Amino acid sequence: MKKIKFAQIGFGPIGQQIVKFALERQNLELVAVVDLDKEKLGRDAGEILNTGKLGITVKENLEEVLKLDFDIAVISTLSSFKDVFPTVKQCVQSSKNVISTCEEMLYPFVNDQQLAEELDKIAKKNNVTVLGTGINPGFLMDFLPIILTTPQKRTDKVIVKRHQDASKRRLPFQKKIGAGLSIEEFKRKVKEGTIRHVGFKESVHLIAKALSFEIDQYKETVDPVVADKEVKSEYITVKKGMAKGVHQTAIGFKNGEELIKLELKAFLGNPSEEDTVELYGEPDITSTIKGGVNGDIGTASVVINTMPNLIKSEAGLKSVIDIPPAHFWR
Amino acid sequence: MKKIKFAQIGFGPIGQQIVKFALERQNLELVAVVDLDKEKLGRDAGEILNTGKLGITVKENLEEVLKLDFDIAVISTLSSFKDVFPTVKQCVQSSKNVISTCEEMLYPFVNDQQLAEELDKIAKKNNVTVLGTGINPGFLMDFLPIILTTPQKRTDKVIVKRHQDASKRRLPFQKKIGAGLSIEEFKRKVKEGTIRHVGFKESVHLIAKALSFEIDQYKETVDPVVADKEVKSEYITVKKGMAKGVHQTAIGFKNGEELIKLELKAFLGNPSEEDTVELYGEPDITSTIKGGVNGDIGTASVVINTMPNLIKSEAGLKSVIDIPPAHFWR
Repeated sequence: MKKIKFAQIGFGPIGQQIVKFALERQNLELVAVVDLDKEKLGRDAGEILNTGKLGITVKENLEEVLKLDFDIAVISTLSSFKDVFPTVKQCVQSSKNVISTCEEMLYPFVNDQQLAEELDKIAKKNNVTVLGTGINPGFLMDFLPIILTTPQKRTDKVIVKRHQDASKRRLPFQKKIGAGLSIEEFKRKVKEGTIRHVGFKESVHLIAKALSFEIDQYKETVDPVVADKEVKSEYITVKKGMAKGVHQTAIGFKNGEELIKLELKAFLGNPSEEDTVELYGEPDITSTIKGGVNGDIGTASVVINTMPNLIKSEAGLKSVIDIPPAHFWR
Repeated sequence: MKKIKFAQIGFGPIGQQIVKFALERQNLELVAVVDLDKEKLGRDAGEILNTGKLGITVKENLEEVLKLDFDIAVISTLSSFKDVFPTVKQCVQSSKNVISTCEEMLYPFVNDQQLAEELDKIAKKNNVTVLGTGINPGFLMDFLPIILTTPQKRTDKVIVKRHQDASKRRLPFQKKIGAGLSIEEFKRKVKEGTIRHVGFKESVHLIAKALSFEIDQYKETVDPVVADKEVKSEYITVKKGMAKGVHQTAIGFKNGEELIKLELKAFLGNPSEEDTVELYGEPDITSTIKGGVNGDIGTASVVINTMPNLIKSEAGLKSVIDIPPAHFWR
């Protein structure tokens, strides 16, 4: 196998995880790291990761980095397709394949069809492939349920549940799901859009597209899970009556009937930890991953495991179901 | 979506199931049926299926059928790659894409590398794609465990278990797994090769190839599951001491260590009915389909659900992990 060379654009928690995992793959070579954070600029990436020096300095100037010879730009910066678009475009115009963990890039046609079509054209013109992926969106609540329909004669309805005990996760995750907030604060943050798993809309529409479901209505709900008694994690204590996490649903309807339902329930002390796919049709199929899949490890692994097939795929803006499937490799 | 046209080559139980299921897909059109069975020749395929006349007569002459305009030849005739090869070659030389339920075609390079390379060349020359698939091999015990490694940072070991209660299946299946035979007869049939799930060798080697496991030894075992008391199905009664089904394992080793283990346990009255994938590494992942996936419905569905991506894929002899993944469509 020929070594795959990549540059990491965005060196926050996800970008750092990707680089850390990449160091363990013999056939993967990091050529550059780009980030705008003044605290990181000019420092050796390995020093930031505590892995020992890598000889790769964190750079600010993407244009300079794009002059280097590499196969894939991994972009882990923003969640919004519109916001990440200029960076993706710049990479593509330098004939680099792109994998992004930008949640909306799972299926960007939903959010901005025109911009997505423009990106598809530029990617084709430059003969590179562009893909958005990660553990969720990208695998657990879209790709996996889609491929699990393969043995079905008929798929009528898809329900996917991700139940997580947030107390085992990092503090930023616990904050992200609103643990410790009053119900009022929680609701305010929901309105602001700061408590919300991004990507459900894209997941629902990707499932609908794959299975030829003609969704005519999409609805999302975000509610607090209220602590009925005090609950603690390593980092925070949530008093009775406060939010201990989030319950989010996304539903795709046709003629008022639910055809696709995604449910995320992440709170401190959740006794149910599993990823479940329920497929109704002929036959019904229920698949369960007990204990669930770790999201922190997950996204970085999905990105790395997607690389070999990405660079072999045909040019254009693709989604995870358009290219040969990812899997572990080394 | 443009209608996909296909011809069914081989009109036994699997071929009949495929055609029956295909009739329910609006964007799928059957153009011909080929079989050598004198009982079927000249009869309307729909009459044989009890679905009402289809206007398609079962024909013997493949050469004639290959002159018709269609996209895919579905070949459901034999289990051995060598035996099915001439038929596949003939279809490919007429520029037809091929999906075959021939078990050894999941990964024919294992059995006969030279013949597989020849087929790959002819397929590329004729700009068509050739693929072997089905529920098993093709999905449950190879494709699914392979793609479930996607969120893993490291995959060390793969164990896949298919546990089935054969009493719920058709009589031919119960016979195939040796239910009702004496232990002696069972062992004789194992030696003859008539009691044996075909495809394990291909599944193990496909998993190994995907995950970059360098298997240096392969071992298969086939043993009877002995009835410790009388057990019945709708069709047969198995006395105490007789075989009530089969326990088959396939193991891939490296330096004496088990890296891949597949286990099939199918017997009358099996209380455990599930399809399980256990992945060891970082993190460990265990996925369970309670009740298992129905094999009869499964193979026909997998074949049909593979069609749209097959015809869009690049030319050559491919395996299920080389092309964009199958899923339900209509």
